[in-house]
Amino acid sequence: MANPNDTFTKLCDHARQTGLLTSTIGILNWDEETYLPRDGRAHRAEQTALLAGMVHQRQTAAEVGGWLAELKESPLAADPHSTEGCVIRQLGRQYDKKTKLPQKLVEELTRTASLAQQAWVDARKADDFTAFQPWLERTIDLKQQEAAAVGVTDVAYDALLDDYEPGESTANVAQVLSGLREQLTPLVEQIVESKHKAPREILSRSYPVDKQAEFGKQAAAAIGFDFNAGRLDVTAHPFCGGGGPRDVRLTTRYDANEFAGGFFSILHEAGHGIYEQGLPADQFGLPTGEAVSLGIHESQSRMWENLVGRSRAYWEHTLPELQGAFESARGVGLDEFYFAVNDSRPSLIRTESDEATYNLHIIVRFELEQALLSGDLPAADLPSAWNEKYQQYLGVTPPSSADGAMQDVHWSAGLYGYFPTYALGNLYAAQFFDQAEADLGDLDDHFRRGEFTPLRDWLRRNIHQHGQRYSAAELVERVTGKPLSHEPLMRRLRAKFAELYDLP
Amino acid sequence: MANPNDTFTKLCDHARQTGLLTSTIGILNWDEETYLPRDGRAHRAEQTALLAGMVHQRQTAAEVGGWLAELKESPLAADPHSTEGCVIRQLGRQYDKKTKLPQKLVEELTRTASLAQQAWVDARKADDFTAFQPWLERTIDLKQQEAAAVGVTDVAYDALLDDYEPGESTANVAQVLSGLREQLTPLVEQIVESKHKAPREILSRSYPVDKQAEFGKQAAAAIGFDFNAGRLDVTAHPFCGGGGPRDVRLTTRYDANEFAGGFFSILHEAGHGIYEQGLPADQFGLPTGEAVSLGIHESQSRMWENLVGRSRAYWEHTLPELQGAFESARGVGLDEFYFAVNDSRPSLIRTESDEATYNLHIIVRFELEQALLSGDLPAADLPSAWNEKYQQYLGVTPPSSADGAMQDVHWSAGLYGYFPTYALGNLYAAQFFDQAEADLGDLDDHFRRGEFTPLRDWLRRNIHQHGQRYSAAELVERVTGKPLSHEPLMRRLRAKFAELYDLP
Repeated sequence: MANPNDTFTKLCDHARQTGLLTSTIGILNWDEETYLPRDGRAHRAEQTALLAGMVHQRQTAAEVGGWLAELKESPLAADPHSTEGCVIRQLGRQYDKKTKLPQKLVEELTRTASLAQQAWVDARKADDFTAFQPWLERTIDLKQQEAAAVGVTDVAYDALLDDYEPGESTANVAQVLSGLREQLTPLVEQIVESKHKAPREILSRSYPVDKQAEFGKQAAAAIGFDFNAGRLDVTAHPFCGGGGPRDVRLTTRYDANEFAGGFFSILHEAGHGIYEQGLPADQFGLPTGEAVSLGIHESQSRMWENLVGRSRAYWEHTLPELQGAFESARGVGLDEFYFAVNDSRPSLIRTESDEATYNLHIIVRFELEQALLSGDLPAADLPSAWNEKYQQYLGVTPPSSADGAMQDVHWSAGLYGYFPTYALGNLYAAQFFDQAEADLGDLDDHFRRGEFTPLRDWLRRNIHQHGQRYSAAELVERVTGKPLSHEPLMRRLRAKFAELYDLP
Repeated sequence: MANPNDTFTKLCDHARQTGLLTSTIGILNWDEETYLPRDGRAHRAEQTALLAGMVHQRQTAAEVGGWLAELKESPLAADPHSTEGCVIRQLGRQYDKKTKLPQKLVEELTRTASLAQQAWVDARKADDFTAFQPWLERTIDLKQQEAAAVGVTDVAYDALLDDYEPGESTANVAQVLSGLREQLTPLVEQIVESKHKAPREILSRSYPVDKQAEFGKQAAAAIGFDFNAGRLDVTAHPFCGGGGPRDVRLTTRYDANEFAGGFFSILHEAGHGIYEQGLPADQFGLPTGEAVSLGIHESQSRMWENLVGRSRAYWEHTLPELQGAFESARGVGLDEFYFAVNDSRPSLIRTESDEATYNLHIIVRFELEQALLSGDLPAADLPSAWNEKYQQYLGVTPPSSADGAMQDVHWSAGLYGYFPTYALGNLYAAQFFDQAEADLGDLDDHFRRGEFTPLRDWLRRNIHQHGQRYSAAELVERVTGKPLSHEPLMRRLRAKFAELYDLP
């Protein structure tokens, strides 16, 4: 019998090399979105497909299975939160999931996702849901097969959610989100009825792009993103990517006549980036050096974007700097500016929605995709079901499927179970933020003085440094002493918007 | 017995996949020089080392050896210039060379190159040749071992030259370069004695960097570099790299108070890039889709930089555009500007030298590195031998080893046999250019009208599209009907500089 320590070393070396390939794909993807010449795309697709294939082969290699089988029975696996326990558990999960999926199904999922996305682009442009419907049906069928293949026969959605929010259950998410929805819908109704309107025009003045880039970079650095280990570039859609623990790449987009889009995307992506930079670099390639879940990742971006960046205290510190950089912002009062960046109104498009309404957009999708997967909702009925829920939760009805059920890429790309992680991010963020305030004192006092390091370091200590030692649910309990709840977020939203909109 | 066509398909598929990895390394290297955050370097080194190791493993895999052994005896290998013949011959060469080198020697060469380069940086800074000498000795010893390992026992230099200029012999290069030297040294003496001096000051005025970048990009596009399949960025040292046939990346550097450095680097690198873009994309990863040799590659860069970009006709067309872009160039006459960009004077530093003196810098190195490798020149005597040759060929004596024998990175990096390819590039360029004029008519007439496409397309047809079907020597004979000679270059240099410096 091999010494389990030797086997563990082999497993880790193997995973680290796989991580080098994964992070190389990260650079290729970033490059594709930023600087790749137009005609280089076909070749790039071949490069990434080859590397992705190598990564998959390595992750499902028989020798990995052998090492894991041996290690699971060894004393190294005893403590699930130790380095060894975490690595064995998480690589074991990955190996089991990936080896359970038949190669043929994986290829069919990839192929269909590619074709369905193209069909979605065309159908959306033509506002023709019936052209997209067969692709939606095919994708749902494949995702049901995927859930069955990994052994989930009860609630298919559980298997898919697990890819993004490992260990979380559909039932639990449903319970928390319906608690949120019950309180959020009346709040949004009150906002709609308020006579007060945010002076949004302030943000639509002239904001030269080069100054936005400079100002945004300073803002990201101020909240603790390390530009010696990262960058900021321009892409069509903002993201946080890159190629390794000390090479984190943010992107945003600028509009010379709109300040908020580019700026808050930077804070958002910087939040993701600070998490990546806070993961222990010596654990690179191992689960102990990787983010817990999409929801936890989103909690970091949302915290910096909304709980910090859309707070009054943040702008108390930052508005004078903004006014130094942009003529358009001069003469604007703090109250006005704070209200402008917190303008709330029910809208049709998720990606353009505000802090208060955003979660309702998510809840619509979360409820509908469960129904699509369980078979309760036939694909043909999706547009009407979508419109009904939008009317019910947000009080608006999309005039078209293009701006309704077809507005997001996710369902054509096979990303089912992904949407709720956005709302979970908001919920985790508020719950963590409450605890940070309890530990650090009034955070507004920090922000007013431009001090963001204490919060960043609190996040490092309590969240980032652990990698995947704890599941999202365990982490929330461990850090805040309570299970996930809608209350911290709801309390914050009510307080903020009641003040801004002078609600009863 | 397998069908050789099936075996050939396997060999090609294997090589194409290896090419995807090689071109991925190309992107990682480009990124490292352009946009990689400072703290990402260590991780990047691990990524590239892993991929380079994979490439080496694939190129020396036993199955490749088996396929090649079978194919060499098959009818597919009969015509060495057919697609199949070229692929089998060249992959066979590569396989033989790489499998002959013991793994231990390869590792020692890599390790020593890394350490010796660091030692060279330090020794050069301190102008302390004796600190560098042991590393030079160690490197020479390893390169001698390398030559012996690949079976070259007579002239070690032949084996090393063969890495960069496959099929070329030391004796032949020595003959051509000494012919050049015998006529070039007196020409340079005449230039030195001339009363005429180039108005170099014109180029040292204010040339704003952003305008240089824009102007340089236009110039590269004008000579036929395709920006849909390429880019131009800024690095400390200009290069042409990238990641595939439709993804060619040029770099340069700018100095706001010096025009020529940045601009001619762009033309030079664009020349390399036009070659890369002209290789047949459907042969990617195969020898039929790769450049012939470093010398032929350099012929393309030198042609566009010097024979086009430093011609009077080029500036007849381009000077008005330059004057539109830069105030500093307004009021400058064509004669003045043409003389300024052709300023010639013997100097100490190769990379700063001009079209006339450049080859003498190369010849010094070519002669010295042969003597170092044969053992005729002990490393300890290198600085004095260097200084003697500089005095003899260029009429200058370096005041220090830092600006003398230690000025280039090559010898510390293990790049012996590389230097002559720079001079070969100039020789090939002139010989090809003569033939292009014979075929296309007076090229100055084209350039005067801003027409560069005929020359580019001539290069495509006669050189680029063949990949490695012909060796450099074969290609020169095939295209020009004559073996390589120093005469076409010498004739051009004499004509140009006799006119500029009013020589007898």
